[in-house]
Amino acid sequence: MKATIVNIGDELLIGQVVNTNAARMSQMLTAAGIEVVQTVVCGDNAEDIEACVARGLQAGNVVLMTGGLGPTKDDITKHTLCRLFGSELYENEAALDNVRSIFAKRGYELTDINRKQAWVPRCCTTIVNTVGTAPCMWFDSGKFASYDMDGKVLVSMPGVPFEMEHLMQTEVVPRLRAYFKMDAIVTKNILVQGIGESFLSDLIESWETSLPRNIRLAYLPVAGMVKLRLTAQGTDEVKLRKQVADAVERLYPIAKQYIVGEDAETLAELVAARFKDSGRMLAVAESCTGGSIVAGLTALAGASQYVKGGVVAYSNEVKMAVLGVKKETLEAHGAVSEDTVREMVEGVRQRLGADYAVATTGIAGPGGGTPDKPVGTVWVGLATPTMTFAKCMHYSGPRQQIINRTCNEAYAWLLREAKF
Amino acid sequence: MKATIVNIGDELLIGQVVNTNAARMSQMLTAAGIEVVQTVVCGDNAEDIEACVARGLQAGNVVLMTGGLGPTKDDITKHTLCRLFGSELYENEAALDNVRSIFAKRGYELTDINRKQAWVPRCCTTIVNTVGTAPCMWFDSGKFASYDMDGKVLVSMPGVPFEMEHLMQTEVVPRLRAYFKMDAIVTKNILVQGIGESFLSDLIESWETSLPRNIRLAYLPVAGMVKLRLTAQGTDEVKLRKQVADAVERLYPIAKQYIVGEDAETLAELVAARFKDSGRMLAVAESCTGGSIVAGLTALAGASQYVKGGVVAYSNEVKMAVLGVKKETLEAHGAVSEDTVREMVEGVRQRLGADYAVATTGIAGPGGGTPDKPVGTVWVGLATPTMTFAKCMHYSGPRQQIINRTCNEAYAWLLREAKF
Repeated sequence: MKATIVNIGDELLIGQVVNTNAARMSQMLTAAGIEVVQTVVCGDNAEDIEACVARGLQAGNVVLMTGGLGPTKDDITKHTLCRLFGSELYENEAALDNVRSIFAKRGYELTDINRKQAWVPRCCTTIVNTVGTAPCMWFDSGKFASYDMDGKVLVSMPGVPFEMEHLMQTEVVPRLRAYFKMDAIVTKNILVQGIGESFLSDLIESWETSLPRNIRLAYLPVAGMVKLRLTAQGTDEVKLRKQVADAVERLYPIAKQYIVGEDAETLAELVAARFKDSGRMLAVAESCTGGSIVAGLTALAGASQYVKGGVVAYSNEVKMAVLGVKKETLEAHGAVSEDTVREMVEGVRQRLGADYAVATTGIAGPGGGTPDKPVGTVWVGLATPTMTFAKCMHYSGPRQQIINRTCNEAYAWLLREAKF
Repeated sequence: MKATIVNIGDELLIGQVVNTNAARMSQMLTAAGIEVVQTVVCGDNAEDIEACVARGLQAGNVVLMTGGLGPTKDDITKHTLCRLFGSELYENEAALDNVRSIFAKRGYELTDINRKQAWVPRCCTTIVNTVGTAPCMWFDSGKFASYDMDGKVLVSMPGVPFEMEHLMQTEVVPRLRAYFKMDAIVTKNILVQGIGESFLSDLIESWETSLPRNIRLAYLPVAGMVKLRLTAQGTDEVKLRKQVADAVERLYPIAKQYIVGEDAETLAELVAARFKDSGRMLAVAESCTGGSIVAGLTALAGASQYVKGGVVAYSNEVKMAVLGVKKETLEAHGAVSEDTVREMVEGVRQRLGADYAVATTGIAGPGGGTPDKPVGTVWVGLATPTMTFAKCMHYSGPRQQIINRTCNEAYAWLLREAKF
C-alpha cells in the first residue's frame, strides 16, 4: 500500500492557502497503515494533473486527489479524469438529490451551474458527499482504457478541508482498508511533557526495544510536548488492543511523571476533557503568553462549561488593579518573578471565583531581556483549592515558540494537579 | 521562469508537520514574478529525491529544495545531490566558521557530527546561513556531469521555516532575479474589510479593467478580510512605483470605506503599526473570541508598548466583577446584546486605564444558539476617548471561522476609528 496525494489548486501554488489537506490526509492514512510516498500540489491545469496521476499510479497503488471540483470553468479535474480514463460525464441521480437537498436547506435556488456538481464520469463509483455539493469519485480495478488499474485505486475528493476530512473518515479510508483487505490497525497516543525528545528516547529505550514487532512507535514533538504514537498492525483486532494496552501499562512505571494523558492530539484537548462536566471552574492570568492559554481552551467547543475567564495583564497597572498584585512586590522583585506570578495566580483564582488557576509572566522576546532575566525566562504559577505552586522555566527560540511552550507547560501543570 | 518546490522530510509525509514552507516559498516566488508550477513533498529517500529533482528540472528552470540537511544519517539530501551532479563533499571554510560561531554563541562544544554541517558538494556555490548551521547550496549552469543545467538553477536550503525564510529573502530570491536578469517587480498590498470578495470584485471591476497590462491583481481572502495584491512588472522600477501609486490613488475614491490599510499581511500587524509609538494604550474585553484578539496582538513583538491588557469574560460573573457589567443589563438583555457589549467595552477601557478598547460577545457555536440569537450572532463594541460604538454581526461557518472573523472585525474597527 503506497499512496500519493495530489492536491489541485492554483491558490495553493501562489501560496494564498497553506496546504493543510496534505498533512491531515497523511495523518489519517499513516494511522490507517497506508504509507504516503509523495504529496504533490499542482495547478488547475489538465496536463499537470494527468502527469501527477500517471506518476502516482506508477509509484504505488493509491492516488488520492483533492480540489478542482467546483462548477466554474477553472475547475477541470472531472474533465481530466474523463480523458484519462476514456470516460464521459453524466448526471448522477444520488449526487443530484444531495445537491438539491443542500440548496433547499440553505434556501438557495438551484441553477444549471450548480446542477453540474452532480455530473461525474460514467466509469467511477460515486460517493455522495453529505456535507457539500461536490461528490467524491472512486475509480478502481479493470474499468479503464488507458490505465491498468488492477489492484489500484484513484479517489477524487473536494478540496474544502472539512468536506475532505468527513469523506476520508467515513468513506475513503474504510473503503481502502476493505478493498485491499488490510490488516486491522490499533493506534494509541500518549502525551508526554516536561522531558525533551532525546532524553525521553533514552529513558524508554529498553521499553521501546521490547515492543512486539507489529507495534510501531513514533515520536511527535510539538512545543515542549511529545506525542508518542503506538500503531499496532495485525489480523486480530482484539489481540491488538490487548497488545497495545499491555505496552502502555509497561510504559507507566518508567515514564509516569512525564505522562500527562492519552487519546488526544493536544494538551488543550486533555484539559477540556478533564474539566468539562467536572463542575470545577478555571481562570487564567497571562502576561507573556498574552491570551494564548485561554484562547487555546476557548477555541474548543464547550469551553464555557469550565472557563470562568482570563486576564491578560500585560502591564503592571493591570496586574495591580485587576489581579491585586502588590506594588511593593513589583518594585522589589519585578514583574517576572516568583512573588509576582504567585500573586497573579492567587489573585485571578480569587477575583474570578474559580477553583483552579494558572498564570504566566516572562520575557517572550525578541526584546526585553536582561543579563539577569534573559529572553525565555518565564515564571508559571498554579493555584488549586489547597495550594499555590510556581516555577521558573528557561526557554529558547523565537517569540512564538516561547509562547507555545509556556502554554503547554501551563496545560500540563493543570493535568498533573487538577485530578478529580 | 518556472519553479518547482521540493520539500524533503519523512515528518511531512506522515502529517506530523504541516508544510508551511511550500506556501511561504510560493508567496515569495509569486511576489518576485517567478511562477511556481508544482510543489512536491518527498521522504528522506535518495531515489525519490533524485526523481523529484529530475522532474523539476524538466518542468522548468528552477528547483528549490528544503530539508534533509541535518547531520544525522536520516538526512541524505547532500549525498544525493553529490551523486546527481557527479560531485563530492568537502569542508567549506566559510560554512565551518559560521557553525563555529553559532556553537560558541550558544556555549556548546563543537563535535565531529556538528562539523559535518559545513560539508558541501564541491560543484556548488555555498551561501552561508547566518541564522542556522546548515548552509544553503546553489547549483547553476555548466557545472555538472549528468544534467544539462544551462539556464537552470537548483538551490538546497534547510527546512527550518525561519532559516528558509531568511535565506529566501536575503539571498535566494535576489540571486534568482539577478541570474535570470528578471524585470523589476513592485508589489503592493491593500487590506480591505467589511465587504465580501464577490461584492468587492463587482465594486472595483472597472478600476480592475483599467489597470495597465503589466499590473496583475490578486484577491486573497482570509476570515472576512480581503488582501488585494498588485504586482507590477517591467524594466524601470521608478516607473513601476509611479504606476502602482497611481492605481492605488484611483482605487481610494471607489473603495475608501472598506480599505483599512496598506503594506501588511494581517490586520493585527496594521493595528500594531498604528498603536506602537503613538503613546495610546489599548484594552480588550472578550467573550466569544476567548482571548484570540489580544493573543493575535501579543504574538507580535513590541506589543507591551500599546497593549495594556485584556479580560476574557467568558462567564457572566466575570463580566460583572471584572468589567462592571450590570446585573440588570444581563438579566434584561442577555450576555449577547448591545447593552452588554457597550458596558463591557466601556468597563475594560476605564478599569484597565486604556485610551481605546474593543469588546466581543456572541455565540461561536456549535452549541448555544437560539432562534432569536443563532450561532454566529456576535456583538462587537469599540470605545474611544470620545465615543462608544456597537454593532451586531451575523456570521456563519465553523467555530474557529466565527472567532477569526470577529477578530478581524475588531481589528478593522480599531483601524477605522483610532487615527492619530
